[in-house]
Amino acid sequence: MRILGIDPGTGILGFGVIDADEKGKFKLVDGGVIRTKVNQPLDERLIEIYRHLASIISKTRPTVMAIEKLFFAQNVTTAMSVSHARGVAMLTGKIAGLEVAEYTPLQIKQSLTGYGRADKKQIQEMVKILLGLKTVPKPDDCADALACAITHAMTATHR
Amino acid sequence: MRILGIDPGTGILGFGVIDADEKGKFKLVDGGVIRTKVNQPLDERLIEIYRHLASIISKTRPTVMAIEKLFFAQNVTTAMSVSHARGVAMLTGKIAGLEVAEYTPLQIKQSLTGYGRADKKQIQEMVKILLGLKTVPKPDDCADALACAITHAMTATHR
Repeated sequence: MRILGIDPGTGILGFGVIDADEKGKFKLVDGGVIRTKVNQPLDERLIEIYRHLASIISKTRPTVMAIEKLFFAQNVTTAMSVSHARGVAMLTGKIAGLEVAEYTPLQIKQSLTGYGRADKKQIQEMVKILLGLKTVPKPDDCADALACAITHAMTATHR
Repeated sequence: MRILGIDPGTGILGFGVIDADEKGKFKLVDGGVIRTKVNQPLDERLIEIYRHLASIISKTRPTVMAIEKLFFAQNVTTAMSVSHARGVAMLTGKIAGLEVAEYTPLQIKQSLTGYGRADKKQIQEMVKILLGLKTVPKPDDCADALACAITHAMTATHR
């Protein structure tokens, strides 16, 4: 199973593609971030995210998108900005025929570390270990996207 | 100039298509709402909005989308829900090659009534008058979308 994980955002959107085999082994296929400029109009930023993401999908051919679910109340402006990009990312997945699964930060923490109080560093360390990497993937948004993809693999195999 | 106005939302998204001539006269072309079900997964709802909106665009062939800009802080959940649909609507317009313009509720009020303190009823009454209709378009989301389209026509002709 090939999974595309997404950590949504308008300024920076993390993505990570992994392969998960029947034995529960994971392999990194691709990962990185899509950045758009703050001074660009929102419509331009959104179509840039769409085009970039569609090209990643057509290159790596995942069958499912695992996307982080927003669950915070820091401030409305951030929530709105992330949600625009999140809507666009989910639609891009659907247009490409992918199954789309959503995971909360708590679900991701619990899947990767077994409990909900793990901090960001611990999650990222687990991503490194589970993918057999020498270092933690950078930037954080990419590591978070990979954590979401791994969560789907773990959840899906337990179904 | 043919303008597609949008009042974004995931549960109900209002749309309204108008023609604006050089003399500042407006004509209603189409209008209504796209509804999606609360109990449907979000990804299904978003692609339904995309498909419905893309079909409205291909039928009515507007050159510009005028979409209401969020500007509130009622609660984060609503802001996130509206923003998902708003990102999808803007992307749908861009994919179809439309120019996308954003207007705040204040800009809409000022364009239609000349001052920023008009209430919803007054705005809707102006939509009726400016489009030469016998009654106010229903539901409210459709009237709001038409108000946004009229705002673009008024703003664009003053450029």
